[in-house]
Amino acid sequence: MSLLVVGTVAFDAIETPFGKTDKILGGAATYISLAASYYTKNINLVSVVGGDFPNENIALLNKHSVNTDGLQILKDQKTFFWAGRYHNDMNSRDTITTELNVLETFNPIVPEAYQDCEFLMLGNLVPKVQQQVITQLRKRPKLIVLDTMNFWMDIALNDLLETIKMVDVLTVNDSEARQLSGEYSLVKAAQKILSMGPKYLIIKKGEHGALLFNKEQVFFAPALPLEDVFDPTGAGDSFAGGFIGYLAETKDISFDNMKRAIIFGSATASFCVEKFGTENLVNLSQEQVDERVQEFVDLVQFDIALV
Amino acid sequence: MSLLVVGTVAFDAIETPFGKTDKILGGAATYISLAASYYTKNINLVSVVGGDFPNENIALLNKHSVNTDGLQILKDQKTFFWAGRYHNDMNSRDTITTELNVLETFNPIVPEAYQDCEFLMLGNLVPKVQQQVITQLRKRPKLIVLDTMNFWMDIALNDLLETIKMVDVLTVNDSEARQLSGEYSLVKAAQKILSMGPKYLIIKKGEHGALLFNKEQVFFAPALPLEDVFDPTGAGDSFAGGFIGYLAETKDISFDNMKRAIIFGSATASFCVEKFGTENLVNLSQEQVDERVQEFVDLVQFDIALV
Repeated sequence: MSLLVVGTVAFDAIETPFGKTDKILGGAATYISLAASYYTKNINLVSVVGGDFPNENIALLNKHSVNTDGLQILKDQKTFFWAGRYHNDMNSRDTITTELNVLETFNPIVPEAYQDCEFLMLGNLVPKVQQQVITQLRKRPKLIVLDTMNFWMDIALNDLLETIKMVDVLTVNDSEARQLSGEYSLVKAAQKILSMGPKYLIIKKGEHGALLFNKEQVFFAPALPLEDVFDPTGAGDSFAGGFIGYLAETKDISFDNMKRAIIFGSATASFCVEKFGTENLVNLSQEQVDERVQEFVDLVQFDIALV
Repeated sequence: MSLLVVGTVAFDAIETPFGKTDKILGGAATYISLAASYYTKNINLVSVVGGDFPNENIALLNKHSVNTDGLQILKDQKTFFWAGRYHNDMNSRDTITTELNVLETFNPIVPEAYQDCEFLMLGNLVPKVQQQVITQLRKRPKLIVLDTMNFWMDIALNDLLETIKMVDVLTVNDSEARQLSGEYSLVKAAQKILSMGPKYLIIKKGEHGALLFNKEQVFFAPALPLEDVFDPTGAGDSFAGGFIGYLAETKDISFDNMKRAIIFGSATASFCVEKFGTENLVNLSQEQVDERVQEFVDLVQFDIALV
């Protein structure tokens, strides 16, 4: 009866046209867990950090209903570190530094107490490592969601294809969907990717919203038009976290409920990009979330009575 | 009690990755009028062509409820001609030929019988010429919609700004909205442009949908995810035609009805791009239009009950 989140917990140093940060808390699993915490209260984390990871970050996760028993702390090593600089359009970025550190040898171990997980969210990681988590679970979760990126399509495609086969929902961005399928049309790309195994595909288009496909249906959720985007870091992970958090809480994996989950995911991502790093995600109120979701309703709802 | 459409009627030669055409019927006013004809039956056209313009094209417009008494035919001159080639992504194109011909000296004359127009759609043209049409009308229409493009922002900005002040709805694409306002954020761009005069702004984002703004509200309509886009020519004009046609027929210019009009506009544009030129727009049935609009409903509607 819980959500298991697997992915990186990291330090990020971010530079955007609006400013820059020193090493701050980051990582896919961090954003996913924090985002999910606004929708569900039983979140279990599997990840790895080094001895340099501050206890206050762990306390912060715990405060957000995240159980960190599965967070390995390798005292003599250092936490994964990424530094990047966003261009003016905020859609492209340069990686300045990637220090894998503890991630180089990451061997995920699912604690016994996590074995009953019903929802599994695999954040972007080496596909083989994602696979190891699935095979460790004695009972298959009700829903497995996998996020990945172009990097693994370039250097570990076969592993990735094998892993994709094992999951229910795959999330990628539009250029990744095109790369994985070899199709430019996202409709054709989606059908090809769905034939690779997953029952659902989410194509994230950043400021242009997100598409949810299964073999028969398609749903589109816009991104909220924002006055300012300060930092896109973690937007995709916050989206995934809101999505899986809502599903884990409602326990309804119908297409109709996935639509709602995507709106909650989009709302959570919209908060994320309004401030640097996790700054906004650690301080939201239920009222803010509800108001934001209402903005999505107002943004897209119309009534047309067809005869 | 009618819709007045002003804009180019032209020949286009189009090349896309899917094929190429000889000189075919084109022009902003052509696409706008044909698109509008699926929603309203009283369409008056003001434009200009040369002696080379075939009678069958005029008959085609007449068949689609378009009154062509305001279509000047300059027998000794040639029709406006544009040739272009789309790149693989279909989002960018090169102009190969632009022969202004009759357009060089176009002096729009609104026939007496058109004076009672309630809805005025000004397709992309020299801003001064668009202005001449407005000033010729003795009674201001209930709604004036103006389409324009970056070209006029580059070479006739002051004329354009003067013209924009006179209209109710401005339609531009996202990069034009950024150019006109000097703001990258579309939310900020919209507020700045609305302060220039128009009460409503539509920002067209091509395959990423369209946004409707007034000073207090924002509405987003997606583009329909299509298997194939064969030819983007006329997409923006078909969108505008469906939009104004629906408004002209329903005579309701509330924000809620504009939302509906945008969905009808988007549906019409989605047909346009599925075939070359006007091929699809001249052969639609009411059933096809209704089915397409239902696809938009299915694409974006969700129900979330907020407490």
